[in-house]
Amino acid sequence: MPHRENMSSKGHVSFVSSGPGDPELLTLRAIRLLQSCDVVLYDDLASGPVLEQVGPQAERIPVGKRAGRPSAKQEHVNALLVEHAQAGKHVVRLKSGDSGVFGRLEEELTALRDHDIPFEIVPGVPSAMAAAAMAGLPLTRRQTARRLQFVTGADVTGGLPEDQNWAALADPHATTVVFMGQRTFPQMAALLIQNGLPADTPALLAEAVGHPHQRLIRSTVAELARQLTTEGPSPHPALILYGPLALGD
Amino acid sequence: MPHRENMSSKGHVSFVSSGPGDPELLTLRAIRLLQSCDVVLYDDLASGPVLEQVGPQAERIPVGKRAGRPSAKQEHVNALLVEHAQAGKHVVRLKSGDSGVFGRLEEELTALRDHDIPFEIVPGVPSAMAAAAMAGLPLTRRQTARRLQFVTGADVTGGLPEDQNWAALADPHATTVVFMGQRTFPQMAALLIQNGLPADTPALLAEAVGHPHQRLIRSTVAELARQLTTEGPSPHPALILYGPLALGD
Repeated sequence: MPHRENMSSKGHVSFVSSGPGDPELLTLRAIRLLQSCDVVLYDDLASGPVLEQVGPQAERIPVGKRAGRPSAKQEHVNALLVEHAQAGKHVVRLKSGDSGVFGRLEEELTALRDHDIPFEIVPGVPSAMAAAAMAGLPLTRRQTARRLQFVTGADVTGGLPEDQNWAALADPHATTVVFMGQRTFPQMAALLIQNGLPADTPALLAEAVGHPHQRLIRSTVAELARQLTTEGPSPHPALILYGPLALGD
Repeated sequence: MPHRENMSSKGHVSFVSSGPGDPELLTLRAIRLLQSCDVVLYDDLASGPVLEQVGPQAERIPVGKRAGRPSAKQEHVNALLVEHAQAGKHVVRLKSGDSGVFGRLEEELTALRDHDIPFEIVPGVPSAMAAAAMAGLPLTRRQTARRLQFVTGADVTGGLPEDQNWAALADPHATTVVFMGQRTFPQMAALLIQNGLPADTPALLAEAVGHPHQRLIRSTVAELARQLTTEGPSPHPALILYGPLALGD
């Protein structure tokens, strides 16, 4: 029973979560939609092997917009969604991880609602859950990590969002996952430590999760910040997890 | 590339995330494992239509342990995992939602490590992501909900865990998802409001997400607390989401 607003045989949009990038982690529903749709609009991060699941019938349109890179404007993506749906097409909007998490889903939903275009949202495997699974880690721990939180390390300009709840983020009893945070983590780590997070809190850098060049770096908050300062961010997308992680295996 | 510790042809355990309950939201990898394993140990919440994906070759063992109900002890589940793996079986441990989130995964991993039993973790669609998708909601919003957090409303005794970060949970700029919180939400809502969360903050009760009797109730924090006080919790498992949710559609 996915949420469907006025779905019918006329043009409509399926927001499909691509998961972390490994086609084995696509849902059955995602695969069915990729194999039956007319058009796929996809982000950089949702490309790769997942695109091989798209049937030969479908037009494929890249609309990549990675933080801090030359990119298609959000308005352009919105316009493409509306245009193809109004032409009677079944459009799949493929988004990396889970489409509802840091994916600008709201802007695209608003554009569709403004034009009375029916849509559905298909949830998927968030890259955070995949990163933890690959590292052999639970995201919550009964005594020590009872809260799990996701934040973004980059706003639209690519900078660290400063109006954050630093007390919540510096809580040593939560597992925190930072999306798009490689460039700003040195600055973020300093603020976390100022706000009381121990510098030796375990941290995990999970690069290219689910892709062949996946890399997991087990570290601490202070050490990872030092490493990213000296080496710079990797060219691959990465998540940073910190908190009472059971990294010692 | 799932995380695999010393996987080989001898007995091993695959922790498989069943997603919210709709078999269409299983991953390809989950289905493959359910169809090829020797034994499935499953929770109450991971039963239903998902179990129909288990191949006829597999022994099925229910190990339900819902909060506050008579249930198999965690030690018993651990012992069953170890026993079947040591007998050379490929065991699937099926957990609802994503297995790494509030699922006692750590206790089971520890038991396996203590016995040198190889395992892998297969991430899945968390019920929180499914609930938001079914309601047509993004979980994050660019200006107003930059942090997403998951907490549990019940500890091992079924009561509200009191040593929580109430400032983090009462932050009006976060989307919060409460797991197993129906019974304690009236008490939790009072504490949230005391800590500064506006009483009219949007709230969503998502019951039996992905099941045929799914029900979504759009409300506010204060109103939902009142409803759960007068009507009591529903017999179905439910998530509670609150924060700057775009419920008004």
